[in-house]
Parts: sequence; C-alpha cells; structure tokens
Amino acid sequence: MKLHNELTATEALSEMDAGTLTAERLLRACFDRIDAREDVVGAFIHLDRDSALEMARRIDQSGRKGPMGGIPFAVKDIIDTHDMPTAYGSRIYAGHQPAADASCVALTRAAGGILVGKAVSTEFANFFPGKTANPIDPARTPGGSSSGSAAAVADCMVPLSLGTQTTQSTIRPAAFCGIYAYLPSQGDFRCSGVREAAGSFDRLGPMARSIEDLMLFRDVLLRIKPRPAGPVEDKAPKIGFCRTTLWDQMEPCMRAVMEEAVARLERAGAQITDITLPASFDGFSEAHRKVSSFEFVRNFAHEITHHWDEISEALRNGRIRHGLETDFEEYRAARRYLAQSRALIPEIFADVDVLITASAMGEAPLGLHATGSAAIGEIFTPLYLPCVSIPCGVGPNGMPLGLQVLAAADDDARLLAVSRWVDRHLN
Amino acid sequence: MKLHNELTATEALSEMDAGTLTAERLLRACFDRIDAREDVVGAFIHLDRDSALEMARRIDQSGRKGPMGGIPFAVKDIIDTHDMPTAYGSRIYAGHQPAADASCVALTRAAGGILVGKAVSTEFANFFPGKTANPIDPARTPGGSSSGSAAAVADCMVPLSLGTQTTQSTIRPAAFCGIYAYLPSQGDFRCSGVREAAGSFDRLGPMARSIEDLMLFRDVLLRIKPRPAGPVEDKAPKIGFCRTTLWDQMEPCMRAVMEEAVARLERAGAQITDITLPASFDGFSEAHRKVSSFEFVRNFAHEITHHWDEISEALRNGRIRHGLETDFEEYRAARRYLAQSRALIPEIFADVDVLITASAMGEAPLGLHATGSAAIGEIFTPLYLPCVSIPCGVGPNGMPLGLQVLAAADDDARLLAVSRWVDRHLN
Repeated sequence: MKLHNELTATEALSEMDAGTLTAERLLRACFDRIDAREDVVGAFIHLDRDSALEMARRIDQSGRKGPMGGIPFAVKDIIDTHDMPTAYGSRIYAGHQPAADASCVALTRAAGGILVGKAVSTEFANFFPGKTANPIDPARTPGGSSSGSAAAVADCMVPLSLGTQTTQSTIRPAAFCGIYAYLPSQGDFRCSGVREAAGSFDRLGPMARSIEDLMLFRDVLLRIKPRPAGPVEDKAPKIGFCRTTLWDQMEPCMRAVMEEAVARLERAGAQITDITLPASFDGFSEAHRKVSSFEFVRNFAHEITHHWDEISEALRNGRIRHGLETDFEEYRAARRYLAQSRALIPEIFADVDVLITASAMGEAPLGLHATGSAAIGEIFTPLYLPCVSIPCGVGPNGMPLGLQVLAAADDDARLLAVSRWVDRHLN
Repeated sequence: MKLHNELTATEALSEMDAGTLTAERLLRACFDRIDAREDVVGAFIHLDRDSALEMARRIDQSGRKGPMGGIPFAVKDIIDTHDMPTAYGSRIYAGHQPAADASCVALTRAAGGILVGKAVSTEFANFFPGKTANPIDPARTPGGSSSGSAAAVADCMVPLSLGTQTTQSTIRPAAFCGIYAYLPSQGDFRCSGVREAAGSFDRLGPMARSIEDLMLFRDVLLRIKPRPAGPVEDKAPKIGFCRTTLWDQMEPCMRAVMEEAVARLERAGAQITDITLPASFDGFSEAHRKVSSFEFVRNFAHEITHHWDEISEALRNGRIRHGLETDFEEYRAARRYLAQSRALIPEIFADVDVLITASAMGEAPLGLHATGSAAIGEIFTPLYLPCVSIPCGVGPNGMPLGLQVLAAADDDARLLAVSRWVDRHLN
C-alpha cells in the first residue's frame, strides 16, 4: 500500500474523486516527506508551505476544480513565479521576485495544481551544480540542469515537476533519478517566463512517476481538455533501435540494459530494426555547442556586463568563453546544418513508429561537483523530436538507468501510446 | 544643416569621431526635441534624463567606447530594463521594475548606446493602442504595436529605437511614420527579456532614419564587430515585384507609389519580374491568426487568471477569444502548413535577389483608437524572411508611404545591400 505522497498524480486524482483522499492530506504527506528528506536531497531552493496548504484547503472546500485540482507540483527555479522568489540558479538573483507566473506555472495552477516550491537548477540551467543530491544515493549527482525537479519527484516529495532542456537537462536527470520525463515536439509548450538559455533548443520538460501523469501534464500545459489515458494499446509497435555513435563510450551496464530491453520488447511482439543515424549527423555535437553557446552569451549580456564576478568560473570558462569565440557566420552555418539535417527525419521514421536509445551514458556519477555527460542530448535535442525517458534497469551500483523513446515531430500522441506499451513490458 | 538630433547614428558617430560633437550635446539635442514635442507625439511611457546624461558625460570623459558609443536609443516598453519600469503596454504592470535588461538592451548598452526611455507599446504588443500620435499628423495613428518606437525616431527624438513584430508591428509603424526598419531572418536576434506575444512569429525590429544605421544596430544586436557600410553597390539588382492578393484592397495612392517606384528602379537598371506567391499561400492570414492567438492565450495565462478586468475589451474579445476558440489540432495544422509553405521559398527567389511589396495598405489612418491594418504582415511574417521597410512617396494627405524589401532567409547581407541601392534610387 502506497503512502499518499507516493501516489502518482493520476492515482491521487482518482482517490480524490472517490472521496478517499483530500488535497490537504495529499499535500501534508508531500510536506512530511520533504521534512524527512530535504536535508539529504536538497531538491528545493524555496518552499511555501502555508500558501500551498491554504490552496489545498480551498480546493477541498470548493470541490476539486480543474483537471489537476489538488495535485502538488514543483518547478525548476529558472521558471518565474509571482509569489515565490526565482533565482535562476544564480547567486546574482538570490531573492529576486518576478511579477508574474511563467506561462507554464499559470496554466498548471489554472488547472488546479498546487505549487509547493522552486526546485534547484544548476546556474542558469548550465553545468555548474546546485546543492541537490541523488535521492537513490546522495553521494551521486541527480543530473542536471533540472536537478531538483528530478530529485523531488524521484523522492516522492511531489508527484509532478517541470524541468527544462537545452542539451540533456530533463532526460538525463530523469534517468539518473529513476523517473519518467517528456519533451514535446519543439515549440509545443510556451516558454514565456522561463529564463532562456538558448532559444533554438530550450524546451519545457514535465517529470513524473508515470507516463499517464506526463500525458495529463502535457494536456494542462497545452491548455487542452485532458482525456483519460485509457488502456495500454495491445498492438506491438515497430521500434528502431538506435545505438548511436556514442555506443562504445557508454558504460557497459547501459549497453547491457539496452540490449536486454530490446530483446524483451521483441519477445513481447515489437518489430525491432537497427537504425543508424545518417553519417551527416556526426557534426551535431559541435553544431549544438556552437548554436547554444552563441545564443547563451547574447542572452546573458546583462549578467556578463554587470555581474561578471558573480558568474561561476565553470560557466565563464565554458559556455561563455565558447560563445564569445563563436562568430556569427559559424553560428548561422551550424544552425542551417541542423535545420537541413532535420529534413532527413522522415526517412528515419519511414519504417518505424519510434526510436529507442539510451537516456544517458550510464549510472549517475559519484560526486556533486558535476552533473554527468550530456553527450546524448547533443545528438537528439537538435532534432526537435518529442521524447519520453523511461526507467529501465539498474547499474552495478544500484543506480537507475533510463531509455528514451523518440517519435517524429508532431507525433506526440503515438510517442506517448508506444511509451506506455514499452513501459508495461519493461517495468 | 541638420540639427544634432536630426543626425543619423552613423552621422553622429562620425562627428563624435571628428571631435565636432559630444555625446552630451547630442543627448541634450534629443531631449530638447523631446521637451518640445512629447506633449503632441506621446512617444514615451518613461524617460530617464539624469542617468542618460550621466552616461553621456562618462562616455565623453572616457573617450567614446564601443561601436555605438554615445548614441541615444529608445526601446518598446515590452522590453525589460533593469533601471526603468516596464509596463508591457498594460495597466496591469504600471510601474513594474524588472531585475535585468533584456538581451537586446544589454547588448546595445554594452556597445555604448544610451537608453533614454521606454517607448509606448500597444497593450501587450497587440492592437489596443497607447497614447502615441503620428508625428507627421497627430490626428493619425503612428501604427502599432511599436507605436512609440516609430514615432520617436520619426520625430528626431532619438536616432535609433527597437520595436518588435508579431504580425506587422514594426514594418507598419515605420511606414506610417516615414522611417526605416529592419527585421532579421527569424531567430537571429535573441528575444530574452522581451515579453513574448507569439513565439512562432515574434521578432525584434530596429528602427532608424537610414539603412546604414540599421546595419550598425544589427551588428550590435548580434554582438559582432560592426563593419563600415561602405559605398552603395553600383550593380543593379534583380527585383521581384510582389503585388500580393491584397493589391485591390490597397489605397490607390499605395498602388500608384509602388508602380512608380518599380518603374523608377527599372529605369535605374533593376531587372524587374512580377512575382505571384503560390496560390497555396492563400491561407496564411487565417493560419497566422490561429498560431498567434493560440500562443498568445497560453503566454498570458497569468494575466487571464489574475487580471481579467484589467485587460482591454478589445484584447479579450479579439486575440484572447480567438485563442481560446482555437484547438490544439487546428493550431498544429496551421503551424505545419506554414512550415511546409516556407519550403517553397527558394523557388520564389530562384530568379530574383529580393522581393519588393508594400509595407502597409496605404497612409496612416485618421484617429488614435486603432493602429491600421496589419494584413500584409499576415502574409509575410510567417515566411520568416529578413526585410527592410523604406520610405517611398507620400499619399494625398501628405502622409508617408513605405515599401518592403524582402530577401531569402539568412540572406540579410544581400537584403541590406540591395535595400541601400533601392533607397538611393527612390529617396
């Protein structure tokens, strides 16, 4: 029997509908968990218990309102909130109070979601980490940059959270912490009120402990009427297994888990095809770095001018230096190359419903000084494809591993349906 | 002999280089003009004379620093500034003080630009107008949504300003006020810190009184080393003359001025080809409205939830109602249709260097209750092409008219070079 804070959002909504759970009890269970664990996990930069409780009571009194009525959620601290400070993971903005909720926060609240706090982000959603530890093994990174968002959901502090991804900032922490995450087709979710890192790649990524919850969250963020997920489809999908050029660099456990997962899905009826990405994609990593660094440096012109000393050395000598060294023609050539590459995507999906590939290079590494390799993101993020990360096995250190399912652009509905099928046969 | 405030930025920089002008004298001339005319024009929602003067003196004392050192500029009030309030054209945010400069402001200031104030925007860069009048005839609209940005430059209050465009919000006011404006290839300028209306279309648009100034401003916003514009090319371009399906609805003066301009350019050596956009583009207007309205409603979820009564009826019954009525599948189909249409662009430019078309339907209409038709923007903005608006003749009421020059995506350098050639032969 699950504790209330361990329920998924969908389960909690059912219980609330059935009258066996109130928003206040659910929220108190979440805060009990936070009280018990936050010292170790460090998922939050800010919590607001009182106003969350007031909101929960109001929902209980008025009857549940909205498709997410009474569901606690957290958002990455690069996302503006009108009633909680937003520091963008930087000491420059400690205590900064925005005037409005970001679009995604306002939409989730309008659907009845209860914001409990701001989850730790790395500095400006880049690589310099915050305080968060991996809840499975606090000696290890939760991944980044959506560190707190992943840890809070994984540790059952909240059922839902929002992260963002510019390289591998949602999928990687979800995999490292053993939870589910979703990125929509590029452009589907509005990022207004979310601090831009590199607009060409930035995406909001919901995190949860089930795919049904991701589907619900998606509908809320699109402001469309959520439909019940219904039963998992019986029909086995056609799956392209994409090892990528990084295969040999992955940890052996990651390769083993992927091979085993593919074998299991095949036994369950999936038609598996090995997919090799076009050789012309080999420059993605460099192109992604050029585009993201060029844009990052322009986006942070204010901080570079006024707050240079308060920016971490890691960021100054990394992304910023690289962005200053990238000239406009290189940037534009990289952007054009990626756009032209995306034109080849329909071919990749000609004979398969989805691709599957690893969500990260292996287990969450030891230490909180870094957030692990984002290399896989440099390949897939520029493709603008919708994707889901699914927990898949454990490594030799007992840490969760994850696989990604990706579908063609605008094929989010199929992606989510197939992901549920994959999840049922793996977990 | 021009007054100092009448100089273009490029001219003023030459004079400052030659030692015949100081930043302080230039700025004082601009403020003298503002003092004399602001009551009539109403270009600004906020001015900051003291800190601008302090900055000018500092630049004079230290020697001119940066490629725009000592040049006064204004920005549309949907653009964040760390030291001036930013109201997004809405009474909801009267007096609101952002924590940081938007990327574009920080980049311009880092280049030595002196921000003198925030220029009036329509409400959230939509259609409900602010107080600004057309400086040529204060009984007429300056156009919108970048109303104050256009009026301030046209009235020689500042040499440079920044507007934004989601439909026709930069090109139209530039034409109505008789100045030059430029929109880059979609995605070139970072919009971080600029309040998003509809991210699929939003672009920053510099405004000025010469094309050389637009080129300088572009380099500053891209954070690349500005190069001197050099002489206007002698070689006559190949020009596609695009009347559009709106031709018969344009005011007769607009059609006459366009025909005359084309005849004059042809006499100057340009090779003119009539270009008809593909019939498949006929749905652009509807598609633009669906995409922009869908995105607008999600972006303004916070204001819709918390400040409904403070939103104008025009916006509630216009863009917002339309956005609420547009469902996600319609939105996505419209977005896909526009993307597929953009794939036809190379064909359009197969035999021409640029397109020219009207910047607006005619003269700035009488009255300050509306900002004029944006219909032309619904055709060209979704194409993501770089473009320049050039003053071109006057109508029967003595109001300026404008024509647009458009080039293929990423062909901004050619666009600007050809625009200078066109300008030399028209003005």
